[in-house]
Amino acid sequence: MPTDTSADKNIFERRESEARSYCRNFDTVFTKALGSELTDAHGKTYIDFLAGCSSLNYGHNDPDMKAALIEHISGDGIAHGLDMYTTEKARFLEAYEEIILKPRGMDHKIMMTGPTGTNAVEAAMKLARKVTGRRNIVAFSNGFHGMTMGALSLTGNAGKRGGAGGGALTDVTHFPFEGALGDDVDTLAQAEMMLDNSSSGIDAPAAFIFEPIQGEGGLTAASKEWMQGVERLARKYGAMLIVDDIQSGCGRTGSYFAFEEAGIDPDMITQAKSLSGFGLPFAALLIKPEHDIWKPAEHNGTFRGNTHAFVTGRVALEKFWKTDDFAKEVQEKSKILTEGLQSIVDIIPGARLKGRGLMQGVDVGSGDNAGEICARAFEKGLVIETSGADDEVVKVLAPLTTPEDTFRKGLDILIESAREVSTSTKMAAE
Amino acid sequence: MPTDTSADKNIFERRESEARSYCRNFDTVFTKALGSELTDAHGKTYIDFLAGCSSLNYGHNDPDMKAALIEHISGDGIAHGLDMYTTEKARFLEAYEEIILKPRGMDHKIMMTGPTGTNAVEAAMKLARKVTGRRNIVAFSNGFHGMTMGALSLTGNAGKRGGAGGGALTDVTHFPFEGALGDDVDTLAQAEMMLDNSSSGIDAPAAFIFEPIQGEGGLTAASKEWMQGVERLARKYGAMLIVDDIQSGCGRTGSYFAFEEAGIDPDMITQAKSLSGFGLPFAALLIKPEHDIWKPAEHNGTFRGNTHAFVTGRVALEKFWKTDDFAKEVQEKSKILTEGLQSIVDIIPGARLKGRGLMQGVDVGSGDNAGEICARAFEKGLVIETSGADDEVVKVLAPLTTPEDTFRKGLDILIESAREVSTSTKMAAE
Amino acid sequence: MPTDTSADKNIFERRESEARSYCRNFDTVFTKALGSELTDAHGKTYIDFLAGCSSLNYGHNDPDMKAALIEHISGDGIAHGLDMYTTEKARFLEAYEEIILKPRGMDHKIMMTGPTGTNAVEAAMKLARKVTGRRNIVAFSNGFHGMTMGALSLTGNAGKRGGAGGGALTDVTHFPFEGALGDDVDTLAQAEMMLDNSSSGIDAPAAFIFEPIQGEGGLTAASKEWMQGVERLARKYGAMLIVDDIQSGCGRTGSYFAFEEAGIDPDMITQAKSLSGFGLPFAALLIKPEHDIWKPAEHNGTFRGNTHAFVTGRVALEKFWKTDDFAKEVQEKSKILTEGLQSIVDIIPGARLKGRGLMQGVDVGSGDNAGEICARAFEKGLVIETSGADDEVVKVLAPLTTPEDTFRKGLDILIESAREVSTSTKMAAE
Amino acid sequence: MPTDTSADKNIFERRESEARSYCRNFDTVFTKALGSELTDAHGKTYIDFLAGCSSLNYGHNDPDMKAALIEHISGDGIAHGLDMYTTEKARFLEAYEEIILKPRGMDHKIMMTGPTGTNAVEAAMKLARKVTGRRNIVAFSNGFHGMTMGALSLTGNAGKRGGAGGGALTDVTHFPFEGALGDDVDTLAQAEMMLDNSSSGIDAPAAFIFEPIQGEGGLTAASKEWMQGVERLARKYGAMLIVDDIQSGCGRTGSYFAFEEAGIDPDMITQAKSLSGFGLPFAALLIKPEHDIWKPAEHNGTFRGNTHAFVTGRVALEKFWKTDDFAKEVQEKSKILTEGLQSIVDIIPGARLKGRGLMQGVDVGSGDNAGEICARAFEKGLVIETSGADDEVVKVLAPLTTPEDTFRKGLDILIESAREVSTSTKMAAE
Repeated sequence: MPTDTSADKNIFERRESEARSYCRNFDTVFTKALGSELTDAHGKTYIDFLAGCSSLNYGHNDPDMKAALIEHISGDGIAHGLDMYTTEKARFLEAYEEIILKPRGMDHKIMMTGPTGTNAVEAAMKLARKVTGRRNIVAFSNGFHGMTMGALSLTGNAGKRGGAGGGALTDVTHFPFEGALGDDVDTLAQAEMMLDNSSSGIDAPAAFIFEPIQGEGGLTAASKEWMQGVERLARKYGAMLIVDDIQSGCGRTGSYFAFEEAGIDPDMITQAKSLSGFGLPFAALLIKPEHDIWKPAEHNGTFRGNTHAFVTGRVALEKFWKTDDFAKEVQEKSKILTEGLQSIVDIIPGARLKGRGLMQGVDVGSGDNAGEICARAFEKGLVIETSGADDEVVKVLAPLTTPEDTFRKGLDILIESAREVSTSTKMAAE
Repeated sequence: MPTDTSADKNIFERRESEARSYCRNFDTVFTKALGSELTDAHGKTYIDFLAGCSSLNYGHNDPDMKAALIEHISGDGIAHGLDMYTTEKARFLEAYEEIILKPRGMDHKIMMTGPTGTNAVEAAMKLARKVTGRRNIVAFSNGFHGMTMGALSLTGNAGKRGGAGGGALTDVTHFPFEGALGDDVDTLAQAEMMLDNSSSGIDAPAAFIFEPIQGEGGLTAASKEWMQGVERLARKYGAMLIVDDIQSGCGRTGSYFAFEEAGIDPDMITQAKSLSGFGLPFAALLIKPEHDIWKPAEHNGTFRGNTHAFVTGRVALEKFWKTDDFAKEVQEKSKILTEGLQSIVDIIPGARLKGRGLMQGVDVGSGDNAGEICARAFEKGLVIETSGADDEVVKVLAPLTTPEDTFRKGLDILIESAREVSTSTKMAAE
Repeated sequence: MPTDTSADKNIFERRESEARSYCRNFDTVFTKALGSELTDAHGKTYIDFLAGCSSLNYGHNDPDMKAALIEHISGDGIAHGLDMYTTEKARFLEAYEEIILKPRGMDHKIMMTGPTGTNAVEAAMKLARKVTGRRNIVAFSNGFHGMTMGALSLTGNAGKRGGAGGGALTDVTHFPFEGALGDDVDTLAQAEMMLDNSSSGIDAPAAFIFEPIQGEGGLTAASKEWMQGVERLARKYGAMLIVDDIQSGCGRTGSYFAFEEAGIDPDMITQAKSLSGFGLPFAALLIKPEHDIWKPAEHNGTFRGNTHAFVTGRVALEKFWKTDDFAKEVQEKSKILTEGLQSIVDIIPGARLKGRGLMQGVDVGSGDNAGEICARAFEKGLVIETSGADDEVVKVLAPLTTPEDTFRKGLDILIESAREVSTSTKMAAE
Repeated sequence: MPTDTSADKNIFERRESEARSYCRNFDTVFTKALGSELTDAHGKTYIDFLAGCSSLNYGHNDPDMKAALIEHISGDGIAHGLDMYTTEKARFLEAYEEIILKPRGMDHKIMMTGPTGTNAVEAAMKLARKVTGRRNIVAFSNGFHGMTMGALSLTGNAGKRGGAGGGALTDVTHFPFEGALGDDVDTLAQAEMMLDNSSSGIDAPAAFIFEPIQGEGGLTAASKEWMQGVERLARKYGAMLIVDDIQSGCGRTGSYFAFEEAGIDPDMITQAKSLSGFGLPFAALLIKPEHDIWKPAEHNGTFRGNTHAFVTGRVALEKFWKTDDFAKEVQEKSKILTEGLQSIVDIIPGARLKGRGLMQGVDVGSGDNAGEICARAFEKGLVIETSGADDEVVKVLAPLTTPEDTFRKGLDILIESAREVSTSTKMAAE
């Protein structure tokens, strides 16, 4: 096992592209991870409030998934099978049907796209245009949907968009998300006025796409009513309703899908991140059967249907979603989180709570503040990141399975870090 | 463990999207795989001449990679670490530097893109446009580069392009690949005439991108001279030279990169498929240091840097690429392949050998012929697929590690299948 | 001279494209025109409240322009001189400088674009992108800027946009015009929130373009404050301020430019329609000298700089704009117009006054109502058209020179027509 | 009348945009023009071998058109009538039907587009896309079709394309024109190979558009066979055949349309330049009736259908095209031109004849040479311009009506200028 080498970061500076990012804030070399904790090469342990950006909702190396995966590999189970039929895919699909779809009265088909969120989004965009024969897709301010050219055209962030180097990001209308024009402005009513006006210049939409909670855009949570409103507009204008549940799904908000409480019925749902349960690359697009008009291989990809992920993903479904217990546990833990974050709001003038469920954070007014809080927390043994157009939100994305005492310990570190920053000269001056 | 269920394909028809494809030709449920063989739920064994479309160059479940991966998982190694520093990433990078880059005098930086080939291609496109400030990218007829909107704009196949549903596939010039206008036409000389003509309507290119062997486009192999010619044009017009080595790389042609024999020096190289060695989702973009102008996170993604793949990918490098032995073995086996395929050429009137190394096939004149040959081969226990604009090429993509007797056995099945088809009424009538 | 033939409309049906439009509403063959009246082949005379859509602000065949033009032609003056120097161009430019630019403290350069409004708009778009290095142009709902692909991308009307047949109408953000979201919504404040938000998905703008009064979009007049607001946003975001004064300019609102009362200083101003004074094809783009970075012939065109139009356009400037008298006369006449239209508002439930100066109309609630009013007016000897997304506005665009009694006579016809329609069964039912 | 002022060029430098171009080469102020001669403010007379870039095929101020136009204006004929029915439009259409369409067995409808060539091209592009439901339009290298965004996307010249400032020039495939890859390459056969290949990346075309002789692109004349070949491809792929006859039409090549000798039957034909006969802005799009699917006003424009141009355009048809005499005269004169230009070819090493009919020129090897020849010719009293990607062609576009002695005199000046340049040190050194 690596010892010296492992802690030597020269290799990264020498060989890894400048595009690397998280490692710049968490400047150590990690070696192991279990449950809600990470260990680095110096043996230091960190509580994980990032959870692979919500890709590790069930924590690191969940023992049941781990056992199943080792058993699968040991028995020479398929590692890569393109999109051929395998027992693992069958078992995953059966579990998904029984545990997720049937109880929710959903009849969606499952498309195994390339194993990244952005690929599922691209598939959804393409299919929405095929189904409707229209090109314009309505996305919302502060939305984040991926980095490939299609998904990037939906994404709001100017820095990310600039990465296209001038490539065309077309056929998208960006409307303001709920609250983006102030709390008193009904952004959907305005969107409706524009869409009703045949001379508004807004072309008839193929789809509406939104995140129930904007994971990268600042943890703004859409209200039940707003989600219902988007559904209504989609129906009114004959457009597909696409929910991008990649970061907010898989239980993060206290229900399997983040839009469940709104009672809406999306035409397509993108899933990725925690879908494998184990942090393995995996993504899927749920499609209402009547819209599943793909021709064979019309959207293909080498790694669609990651077989290792079928194994762990099935265990995740069976372990956590057969009953309501886990969801309720998440809901309970959310209250602890709200309480903890409220302390920070109380400490920092002008701070605001953001988000919902175990996807909450605090808007601390500036990226400098938020970055400083996270940096201090990291020193104290907590891995946590920011979110928002200006990185102004301290975002808590702990594994949903984090034990309560660890969770409280992490929150304490965070509160302490916020307090330090709030009392430092720098912030006082702001 | 699945018994009846596993062989029941209803679940796929009921729940998997119509986009699924390979499973339609290989209509059985696979359960295990080892080396160069797959086993299905009925216990039937198949020789694998598809190898995950070149994602399994080292065969299924290579024992050394398998052991290392199980050890990693058992020891609670990181499964998902975003792009944070990990010992596994360090060790992979060090191995890559020592075993691949240094011996070839390469100084490229490595960008861990989203773990799919299409994502690496998208990153290359964006970076080429950023570096040059230009938008037009030159791609070639029959090129296949991926299904997301950027990569799809480079892809030639009309069916795949149609999947965009009318979304804009812009800023790309498609020039004819070598041989596309007949053997006597120097396609690059013509491209040069168009690019030299300031009134040709072809905008100055940001990049040229090509596959050394067109994996999906019909196994057309670019000659050394043609690859050198593309490099010369890229230099002449101040454009980036991008080699898409996703399907042809990782030893498939008898050298690590498929362009090595041409002695060219690409600005960027896309890798995926067999990069993990084990069939796990993994992709990377090699970038010359002077062009690595990405800002942190300017092109990001949740699953970039698949840690399990770092483990197996490192073992693959150490096991197969420390010496020349493996490359030579592949070159030897390529001769057997050429011989075997020549028999088919001799059987089928008008048939032609295609490809190079262990990426060869036979153009049998029509998709019907090729499909029929592959279908008969499957019945006889051989998994093999077609390639080409009209699926007219029977394509052999066996694991590079296939033992010689298995390899010959597979070839015998293929030859027998071709013979049957050639003597059937149907083909005679053509 | 026309006799039978002239009144025979078969030739139009037989040979003129289905794209023809005005002739469908004014179903007669016109033979002559003088001042504010048109005569048809049956000798019937019509008061002209359309004035070539504001291209005949000085009436038909103004005697002074007519004399100058006949003198020019008789003397073998240049008819077509590409963009070579001619005495007529010199005299037009000198008059424009002395009479229009100097008194207003303007230092703009004059670009003779192709002689259509849409060409001037295209030139402005291209130049704004060249100057700023950005692509996105902000246009507003219900804006109408032309039918060629660039100008069409700015135009709001869905029917017109549909004429592109799926061609790309890209790189434009359509924001709501003043009042488009209700009288209480400050549309610019909202636009500013979106532009201030670096994650809104709205790319940094190269330009803002608007019409002071939306000629085709329903005669909505921008307030002074709103025009100043657009200027402020343009300055704030480093974008060009382009005023499309094609329909609203040349005195139509009681000042030479329709934006004068707002005291703004546009970077570019498009002019066409009445610029020649005589209804001849002619357009120009005013450009602030510091932005006039065109290379010679970078935007060219065969008919740029119509020499006949230089002759009549110069006379128009000298005759009408050397003093304030004409402007004041227009302002006086505007009051008569407001009064007259108010009668219609009083007659028709829910009707609303629209516009400003001699560019006013009445929103009568539906295209059916407006069309019926115009049809009845035509029967009574008045040529008048509708405007608006649903053609719901009866629009008065009489020559500015219309004698008061003729003007009142025309208004009486219009009021009478409105009254008839309001009392007919059809409207009552609505 | 202008005296001093007229010769003062300060006003142009002070007020006219830098986009102006021809005036830079012909640095004097023109005052009058008659037949084939121009007179400047100093009383100097120039033979016109430019003819408004083919807009003055019948010379300046043709006496019959002049008389008709003066009579029309004097009698208060309509100057501007939008697209309403007028006696002048009726008479023009009748003449066009009788004199042009019927004798050629053509059944096209006539669309009065905005009065510029670029507008007719834009209308054709839009209609081709509407009719076929496809977006890609095939244009050819060195093609010039206009400066508005649609037409510019078809245009080859990099300088002109750069004028778009980065605006999107999409949905066009630029194939090499006849001869563009050398005399021995059948460019259409190659285009066909690409279009036949469903993986070429070339999307199915909505239209093919070409100029029979490339007026701006270097006077390359398409052969009869090549034009027939384009027609065949258009039919084969279900695309519209659009001939851009703007510069080459109206008799310039010795037949009314420049494609007549090829016997092809275009779906659409663009006309402008000499259509009015008098140099007035005027353009039209001929459309086969079955493709005339425009909705009323779907492509509109203020100046479509220039009434003054109807008057002169009708006279031009009646005067020159009722019999074959004029066409034959042009054919005769073409021989004189060929002879004259051959002298230049003989003088200048490597020079080549270009073009056809009265649209011929000499490629003198470089823009410097061509520019120098034209500059010397201007000094000697001849107005003549260059053409080609590098302005390397001296282009003769004299009025078709130029008397033989004047024509020979102009040619003598040109030959003398070429001789001077060929013997100057500068050229010798090349």
